[in-house]
Amino acid sequence: MTVKIVRNARIYTSEGNSAAAGNDQGEIRFFPKGAMVIRGGKIEAVGPEEEILVSANTADADEEIDCGGRCVIPGFVDPHTHMCFARRREEEFSLRLAGTPYLEILQKGGGILSSVRSVREASDDELFEHTLSLALSALSLGSTTIEMKSGYGLDTESELRMLSVIRRVGRESPLDVVPTFMGAHAVPELYRGNGDGFVDLIVEEMLPAVERQGIARFCDVFCEEGVFSVPQTERILVEASSRGLGLKVHADEVHDTGGAALAARMCAVSAEHLLAASDEGINAMAKSGTTAILLPATAYSLRKPYARARAMIEQGVPVALATDCNPGSSFTESMPFVFGLAVMAMGLTVDEALTAATRNSACAVGMGTVCGTLEPGKQADFLVLDGETPAILAYHAGVPAVEEVFKKGERVW
Amino acid sequence: MTVKIVRNARIYTSEGNSAAAGNDQGEIRFFPKGAMVIRGGKIEAVGPEEEILVSANTADADEEIDCGGRCVIPGFVDPHTHMCFARRREEEFSLRLAGTPYLEILQKGGGILSSVRSVREASDDELFEHTLSLALSALSLGSTTIEMKSGYGLDTESELRMLSVIRRVGRESPLDVVPTFMGAHAVPELYRGNGDGFVDLIVEEMLPAVERQGIARFCDVFCEEGVFSVPQTERILVEASSRGLGLKVHADEVHDTGGAALAARMCAVSAEHLLAASDEGINAMAKSGTTAILLPATAYSLRKPYARARAMIEQGVPVALATDCNPGSSFTESMPFVFGLAVMAMGLTVDEALTAATRNSACAVGMGTVCGTLEPGKQADFLVLDGETPAILAYHAGVPAVEEVFKKGERVW
Repeated sequence: MTVKIVRNARIYTSEGNSAAAGNDQGEIRFFPKGAMVIRGGKIEAVGPEEEILVSANTADADEEIDCGGRCVIPGFVDPHTHMCFARRREEEFSLRLAGTPYLEILQKGGGILSSVRSVREASDDELFEHTLSLALSALSLGSTTIEMKSGYGLDTESELRMLSVIRRVGRESPLDVVPTFMGAHAVPELYRGNGDGFVDLIVEEMLPAVERQGIARFCDVFCEEGVFSVPQTERILVEASSRGLGLKVHADEVHDTGGAALAARMCAVSAEHLLAASDEGINAMAKSGTTAILLPATAYSLRKPYARARAMIEQGVPVALATDCNPGSSFTESMPFVFGLAVMAMGLTVDEALTAATRNSACAVGMGTVCGTLEPGKQADFLVLDGETPAILAYHAGVPAVEEVFKKGERVW
Repeated sequence: MTVKIVRNARIYTSEGNSAAAGNDQGEIRFFPKGAMVIRGGKIEAVGPEEEILVSANTADADEEIDCGGRCVIPGFVDPHTHMCFARRREEEFSLRLAGTPYLEILQKGGGILSSVRSVREASDDELFEHTLSLALSALSLGSTTIEMKSGYGLDTESELRMLSVIRRVGRESPLDVVPTFMGAHAVPELYRGNGDGFVDLIVEEMLPAVERQGIARFCDVFCEEGVFSVPQTERILVEASSRGLGLKVHADEVHDTGGAALAARMCAVSAEHLLAASDEGINAMAKSGTTAILLPATAYSLRKPYARARAMIEQGVPVALATDCNPGSSFTESMPFVFGLAVMAMGLTVDEALTAATRNSACAVGMGTVCGTLEPGKQADFLVLDGETPAILAYHAGVPAVEEVFKKGERVW
């Protein structure tokens, strides 16, 4: 197995295999002159350079990586994306800027439904190439693990096809890709006015097929006024859970429909968006340990108030960060941009944001024991930043501070 | 002279040699399938491809640039930067995040004064290399003309040295660099409590020396409570004007001290910052035709409310956009990031932002007849974007949509 030594690094990392909440979320381990030993793509040891280089068996090292005193952090885990799509919606963006509400665009057959049409029309290779290109851009910006949702298919065949494409991106790139089935992303045109009928299709046909296909690890539902109600969402999640999928909920994005409380009650791993979440919803999530995946680039792109991140952290909800990369409400694959917004506009501290974008986001996609922190036994997924501290990600505004990206010990950017 | 044909381009450009105000600021000329003829680095013709390629003498073209239907806009002009500095202030950023007010950091010898120390300690080559590296990053992000202020010297010798370094960046890079003398950036430690004495030095020693040196084109003053008062600012500007320098004012950034009204009264080309500008100040600027250079990345980085751009445009003030690139309050050289903030957070339309970041910003640094629009006779400074319209600069959030950068007809990125 290849052995690599990383040295002369200012290492900042959260520690642990489960999501951090409350004060723990701001607890960051710092080695001012740190080193790591990497064996076969995994971290064997991490700590102060003088200890690591003495105690570790470094004589057999194949490569030494001198970080020149720059800051090293875990690779970003982006735990909420709709990156698998076939066409941008640049023209719709101008409509939104002119003030057309998103739900109105959706009702007119725009929004998600126009992405459904273009995904259905695209060939597998076209869909793959478009998704891969965004995923590689995300990788160059420091995302080493990415969750990708289906949900632009909305019929059984197209949803399975999306999940296949998502798996292929993971196989044909250095990334770890976590596939999520999201047939309940919108009610397709064929079922307009018959949401319950579409829920029947999801429960009776799609979920069994998704289980047989064996790609998806999670199931997500867009619980929102005019999309899927709380009872419909619950029905889908119960079935998904019985078929071995982890649970996620798009909750309280536009209106407070009680999605956060539902996610807590169902023991979902995460509730996502939460711009309109109530105090009761936040409290329920804190009690159940459900992670809040916050998407500040979506609030930015929709010109909405940011999620109440400070209230969530103070109530003890673990907070994670994601891009929400999609062609409508948040066309960005940049975790450094999201990190900057989280600190400058949403009020997280730099240390809280670091935990949110690495450890907590890894845990929110079931990868908490695999990546998200720099600890022995985990994959050597890490970033070398153009700065001395993780604060550079917010300080150098709008310019990604990620200089080098390593995945499983290999330099991939 | 080299002749180049740019074709198959969706060309969007403001038109005119002076700053646009009011409704005119949103007037953009669009050629859906446009072309340009470039001769000797200047635009000879621009318009619909079928007209241009027939009427122009294209037989002698040395090169054809096919833009593949992508959007082409003028190169950005960044009209307000403090990019000439020697050291970042990453550690001070954390202080600010923890809530320390900027003026308190300044009074403790931090802020501008710590940059003064590092600039004085740096060799000419060190200062040049640091500045050049930021300038080339800005160029890669689409800035083809950049204003750079002195003001981290604060004694005659160091200010002249900064201006020399700024000139050298223009000479040893593809950029047009516009040098501004800003000796009145802060009161140096030697003159603490004796601001009038320092103004004496500026008026009696620095400005004559700056005139003899012959590099600076503008003079700027930080008019602010605890820095330079309105009477002190006026005294410096009167002297600067008599020595042939154009006038600029850092006005009403933290408090409304009447800086905007002063800039209008003195017929300054621009008042800059303006976060706290009063209605009276805005009205006075509209009457005098003084351009408001707005710096949304500074509001973002200081977590302050954005300047009232809509009120300014409605009152008829020409609005320009700049990065304010500096190591303290706005460490960004990215005009695409500023463009995105201007649209998403400050409320400009895409067309207004395009005029603000090209034509109006060119006019605000005295380059309105040279660049800032794509019209015959101007320099062929243009960008090819990864999209179909300038909206891509806001739509692709946090990811610069600039794919190719041309300066005087040469591809430089």
